[in-house]
Amino acid sequence: MQNLNLPPDAAANTISLMIGHPDPTTLFTPEFQASVNRVLAAPQPFHALEYGQEQGNPALIDFLVDKFNRDQTLALSREQLMIVAGSTHAVDMIARLYTHPGGAVMVEAPTYADALHIFRDHSVELHGVPMDDQGVIIAEMERLLERLSASGNLPALFYTIPTFHNPSGTTLSESRRVEILKLAQRYGFMIVEDDVYRALEFDTHAPPSFFALAKNSGVSVTHIGSFSKTLAPGLRLGWLIASAEAIAGFVDCGTTQMGGGASPLSAQIVAEYCRQGHWEAHILHLQQVYQMRRDIMLAALEQYMPEGVTWTMPAGGFFVWVTLPENVFAREVKRQAQEHRVMVAAGPNYFIDPNSDNGQHNLRLTYSFAPPEDIETAVRILAEVVTGLCA
Amino acid sequence: MQNLNLPPDAAANTISLMIGHPDPTTLFTPEFQASVNRVLAAPQPFHALEYGQEQGNPALIDFLVDKFNRDQTLALSREQLMIVAGSTHAVDMIARLYTHPGGAVMVEAPTYADALHIFRDHSVELHGVPMDDQGVIIAEMERLLERLSASGNLPALFYTIPTFHNPSGTTLSESRRVEILKLAQRYGFMIVEDDVYRALEFDTHAPPSFFALAKNSGVSVTHIGSFSKTLAPGLRLGWLIASAEAIAGFVDCGTTQMGGGASPLSAQIVAEYCRQGHWEAHILHLQQVYQMRRDIMLAALEQYMPEGVTWTMPAGGFFVWVTLPENVFAREVKRQAQEHRVMVAAGPNYFIDPNSDNGQHNLRLTYSFAPPEDIETAVRILAEVVTGLCA
Repeated sequence: MQNLNLPPDAAANTISLMIGHPDPTTLFTPEFQASVNRVLAAPQPFHALEYGQEQGNPALIDFLVDKFNRDQTLALSREQLMIVAGSTHAVDMIARLYTHPGGAVMVEAPTYADALHIFRDHSVELHGVPMDDQGVIIAEMERLLERLSASGNLPALFYTIPTFHNPSGTTLSESRRVEILKLAQRYGFMIVEDDVYRALEFDTHAPPSFFALAKNSGVSVTHIGSFSKTLAPGLRLGWLIASAEAIAGFVDCGTTQMGGGASPLSAQIVAEYCRQGHWEAHILHLQQVYQMRRDIMLAALEQYMPEGVTWTMPAGGFFVWVTLPENVFAREVKRQAQEHRVMVAAGPNYFIDPNSDNGQHNLRLTYSFAPPEDIETAVRILAEVVTGLCA
Repeated sequence: MQNLNLPPDAAANTISLMIGHPDPTTLFTPEFQASVNRVLAAPQPFHALEYGQEQGNPALIDFLVDKFNRDQTLALSREQLMIVAGSTHAVDMIARLYTHPGGAVMVEAPTYADALHIFRDHSVELHGVPMDDQGVIIAEMERLLERLSASGNLPALFYTIPTFHNPSGTTLSESRRVEILKLAQRYGFMIVEDDVYRALEFDTHAPPSFFALAKNSGVSVTHIGSFSKTLAPGLRLGWLIASAEAIAGFVDCGTTQMGGGASPLSAQIVAEYCRQGHWEAHILHLQQVYQMRRDIMLAALEQYMPEGVTWTMPAGGFFVWVTLPENVFAREVKRQAQEHRVMVAAGPNYFIDPNSDNGQHNLRLTYSFAPPEDIETAVRILAEVVTGLCA
């Protein structure tokens, strides 16, 4: 969930390039409604209303295990996948079980602001690894690890959004993934792979996941996926893939034991939806929707932005990361754009210390949420603001 | 969620007096289905599928605030109520924001085992206050507080299920509630009132809640309610009532900010269901259902249990707490009953240290879940086991 506390309605007079929500027009489909109706018409519809099994809806687990084994040539057993109430639930359980107050955690710099918030709630010590257009810079990660090793506080884990990164839109190259796995072997940290945008690829295939690459390496990878981006966030439904031992630990959490499996009603509906083949068809549709939206945004940036402004070229996902000239500050751009009813996110929030110099000249633009016909308008207005500040 | 990891189906040949789930036949009703259909047929059904506002579904907040102000003569503002994903979510957020590792937390002895599990996950130091048939014993709480005061580790909070207590079935008397509020004033602890059974009252009205009694006392009370017992646990939906400041803190949690409001799809359906007046009618029906089930269990205990066995007389909720003679051990009863396909819960799990002497001679029996016609059979078998062990 992004920082805009207003519901989309309340912002009806603005164009939001800020909130990273899915295209609202894709959320409700006849296929989804048909799945709801089939669940409610089942001989025992009350099953969807009972406490769920702790690991999650069994039919949905089976579907996802089969799909990932087929599509990504993995060899998952069903003990390796757990249904979660969105990636939020997964990140929080991982922080709970694999960190301790004062312990070190590595993150990308920039990274997803709300994930930083969850780690902060667990009182860990956060360390950012700078990125370029190929993802985190390996030499920077090595330097950080040497420093942490010398201080006796090696990180428990590295939280990464390697594919179609939030907020930068970049994708970590396969060769760097392999380098990071070697560092994880050497320094003994877990890789927490937040891969919720993976399915939304446009031009080329995403590189193999850390989870796939880690096979037989001895490195622990917890891989997070979600229906929030590829179906609907209101379902509160995602999945967590890890070793059978790690999954057993998550299942044995107090919250899992007390609340039962994640979102039983949603899970039963989505299991039915997936069983009918609707999800895979929907993903193909979403790839086209978001590619078209990305193309509109990139074309508008190209057309309207003044010289000295650069941006990333996302091959999937929701986000473009804009770099402004050194004399133009993101927060001022955000403020002025808001006066013209265009919402954007300023870079500093995506860094561990929003008051440092990091991100002062960056904007995160989302092309996922605003109506396509508004994206060009918003970018034009934004470019006018930036041009004014360049002078 | 109780400790039985099997789904109810897998236990088809057994009678469970163990799991504290609602009567499955009450979960799916034509009124619920109609509410689902109305949400899906709304002009903008995708609203139920978007990220929800962090505080929760606004219509449901308004409904609950109005209802509690009317029924319990409270004066809640809507800033004082948050929708949560079941009481699990509430207990976990409270532990996160109001405890720290090594800090003291007071609980009833016995108490809800899964809540103990959540507190343990937060690495707090747990202290139990012994109970009698009126709830926790005030003199024991005073002694504990004096001891903790002397050790410099006063509790941050007292977690209590004051009404139709899990596992004991007892209700904390109003006079003791008032005494505990005075202790909270003197020693400065928060009262966490897990009141999820409150609406399921049979013979008489439940005493006022801690939240209602605390008015103007300066004591912080966080009050937890749930649709899990009065509608359906698979919805993952409940509420949290506290000061506006405390609610703002919960809304600002990393998990709330990242995941958005709790269970948006369920919340929209339930808001519609409540708006139509169905929930209040359903609660009246459930009161009859569970009173009838309780009466069957109490009559069977009276008829079959040998001398020396005693039990509580719940005035609401799901549970009866049985005390066995001193030469009969609960775990042996549980084991032998299971051989006869009757599942019960042994007392020790409901205490902080399951290996202490506490609860060795207690059983928790639930009358909520097993088919009514099986309750008498199960109690008869259980009584035969106990009689055999008395010899």
